[in-house]
Amino acid sequence: MPAIDPDRLLGDLYKLRSFGTYKTGVHRPSLSQADVAARQWLAGRMSEAGLEAQIDGIGNLFGKRLGTGRRVLAGSHLESQNHAGWLDGALGVVFALEASRAVGNEFGGVDVIAFFDEEGHFGSYLGSRSFIGDVTEPEIDKARDRTHGKPLRDALVEAGYAGRLRVTMDPKRYAGFFEAHIEQGNSLEAADLKIGVVTGIVGLWDYRIKVTGAQNHAGTTTMKQRKDAGLTLVRLIAAVDREFREIASPTSVWTCGRMEFEPGAPSVIPGEARAMFQFRDTDSNVLERLEQALQRHIAAANSAGPCSIAMEVIRQTKPARMSEDLQRAIEQASDLHAPKLAIRMPSGAGHDAQHVARVLPAAMLFVPSIGGISHHWAENTSDEDIVLGARVFTDAIANVLKS
Amino acid sequence: MPAIDPDRLLGDLYKLRSFGTYKTGVHRPSLSQADVAARQWLAGRMSEAGLEAQIDGIGNLFGKRLGTGRRVLAGSHLESQNHAGWLDGALGVVFALEASRAVGNEFGGVDVIAFFDEEGHFGSYLGSRSFIGDVTEPEIDKARDRTHGKPLRDALVEAGYAGRLRVTMDPKRYAGFFEAHIEQGNSLEAADLKIGVVTGIVGLWDYRIKVTGAQNHAGTTTMKQRKDAGLTLVRLIAAVDREFREIASPTSVWTCGRMEFEPGAPSVIPGEARAMFQFRDTDSNVLERLEQALQRHIAAANSAGPCSIAMEVIRQTKPARMSEDLQRAIEQASDLHAPKLAIRMPSGAGHDAQHVARVLPAAMLFVPSIGGISHHWAENTSDEDIVLGARVFTDAIANVLKS
Repeated sequence: MPAIDPDRLLGDLYKLRSFGTYKTGVHRPSLSQADVAARQWLAGRMSEAGLEAQIDGIGNLFGKRLGTGRRVLAGSHLESQNHAGWLDGALGVVFALEASRAVGNEFGGVDVIAFFDEEGHFGSYLGSRSFIGDVTEPEIDKARDRTHGKPLRDALVEAGYAGRLRVTMDPKRYAGFFEAHIEQGNSLEAADLKIGVVTGIVGLWDYRIKVTGAQNHAGTTTMKQRKDAGLTLVRLIAAVDREFREIASPTSVWTCGRMEFEPGAPSVIPGEARAMFQFRDTDSNVLERLEQALQRHIAAANSAGPCSIAMEVIRQTKPARMSEDLQRAIEQASDLHAPKLAIRMPSGAGHDAQHVARVLPAAMLFVPSIGGISHHWAENTSDEDIVLGARVFTDAIANVLKS
Repeated sequence: MPAIDPDRLLGDLYKLRSFGTYKTGVHRPSLSQADVAARQWLAGRMSEAGLEAQIDGIGNLFGKRLGTGRRVLAGSHLESQNHAGWLDGALGVVFALEASRAVGNEFGGVDVIAFFDEEGHFGSYLGSRSFIGDVTEPEIDKARDRTHGKPLRDALVEAGYAGRLRVTMDPKRYAGFFEAHIEQGNSLEAADLKIGVVTGIVGLWDYRIKVTGAQNHAGTTTMKQRKDAGLTLVRLIAAVDREFREIASPTSVWTCGRMEFEPGAPSVIPGEARAMFQFRDTDSNVLERLEQALQRHIAAANSAGPCSIAMEVIRQTKPARMSEDLQRAIEQASDLHAPKLAIRMPSGAGHDAQHVARVLPAAMLFVPSIGGISHHWAENTSDEDIVLGARVFTDAIANVLKS
């Protein structure tokens, strides 16, 4: 089996942390100076590894293994959330590079990709969607940085990427796509496990709920007379939560992240109440079932009155199933390097792999996150777990190339 | 029976609306120029009615019927909420003045009081509490206007009231206290009734509830792992609401006026959630029962975990029972002027009468509020209902003086 070089692997990860260092993490938004410099440096490392490296017209950094034979595509993203962790994205890119170096051309080869803007500074998975041919020029025209509003076109000019062609993938070239990532939760750590074999990436269904009642005096309006938007919303969310506990799958999650009452004074009956409500699951049927329950509760509350509830869909992403064959390839590699320390689990967060999965068999491997911390500079994984994860990742790819 | 003069009554109310006119209502905060001018004008009207009128060291305007015999005290307040209605307070003061004029000295007599600052611009019922001897000089020293922070002492100097003695009541002088007020709700209007005979003024128990959980990723944190402060608060309030519907009295009201989740993002599990929760009832036993239920649900949620809930008492005012004898006196007068159009009801809002009731038998009479509108410039009552209310109010006082 191909042998990875732990020092080279960790050295590249440490080096990436020097681009936009923030405390023990990084602040490396898409197309920031730190991000452009990191992309440039990594392109050099790809060349040193014998890959043909190019940064395309949307900032995707693609490292192509020359020669003939079967290929696996592997990678993740380079940019970070604002003031966030050093491993989110970078780990997957460096794992891919190390796998490509370790495998060489022996069993075929590994192409490496660092997708642009997985973290959504300018849009929704612009890099991976562009790579599979799902981003139009008008979408790029409209895209702006969500923090300071800079148009993506201007940022691409500043980075020196404007005018270049965008590279799209040839699916026939690949046996599959592999992406490694930190877990961003603490399921592995809590169970003392080392490898998460991702079964699928959840679909995220996100809603805005608005209850309209009648603002009134909280003392002089009897319970019968009042149209209390606040308690109506509380009763709705409590009822939905209760039913979800019955009908959800074991891995479903649901969250009411925001709730607001107007006018928000202690002695005034809220005339309006709003909530953000979302749920996630890897199974479309479960997502449908949960939405039907939500709609049923809203309809029942509306017909009971006296308030009226409106629901607006913010987004409904499709869940992506990971390839069963590639999952088994990861498990097979785990049996060698980390016997009984791997577990199948869904990914509750979105990843580039969910888009690549639309055109290629795809797989994701998780390594433990210390304390489950994510999108925060304190995010971390032990060097030991990183090295073990890279060994499994590389062997899993080799298993696929050899099969 | 004493005869009121409808034109004089309505003329005085219209005149008061000219002090601080705002749309069809008034903007007449305590010790504003409009308020001081209204107080001065009303003192003149009291003198014309044969009352010895004085504005005391805290702005209470007291009109004393000279001569001997039993007295009734009647009145309300002159200032308004900011940009609010023309009748809230003013109606009760003019009803008292009209009753005093109509009754004269025939059956004894009616003293008139316009209490300072019932609307709480500077404090909590400073006028009526001062009148019953329940306000200290240090409390006045500390009081500031809640809108622009001006010290009460400075405002009293500007009004010309500083340095005057504060008048306190001699309870032995009075058979009781009567206060008329608009209903501030729509119970009377909805039932086509004309007179509310107030059974008691509710106690208001007000709480701040804070749930502490753990902020985390809404996708990667399983339902078992998460400490969701938001859903914990929703479940608590829903459970309390459900139990209150079983154990509250028919006139209890409860309100969750504010709810906030931190950080309040759709994809972040709330690490903290806060609510303002209050309930009101005229019966202390009911208030105790409701609080016990609230505490029981919090204790149960805390022992179930995983979040922790803290409850802070903001205020717990005592309910004030109105005198049974005086309620009957109002009902007797209603039988004459508005047969079958009076109903007993609690006051869901606070009034000066709740403090006077601590030292005297007290009663309140409500007239209908059009559309139940209160604390808004659109607040109104028909002239017909105002006149009818004043007839009942005056006769009820006469009934007490003659008894």
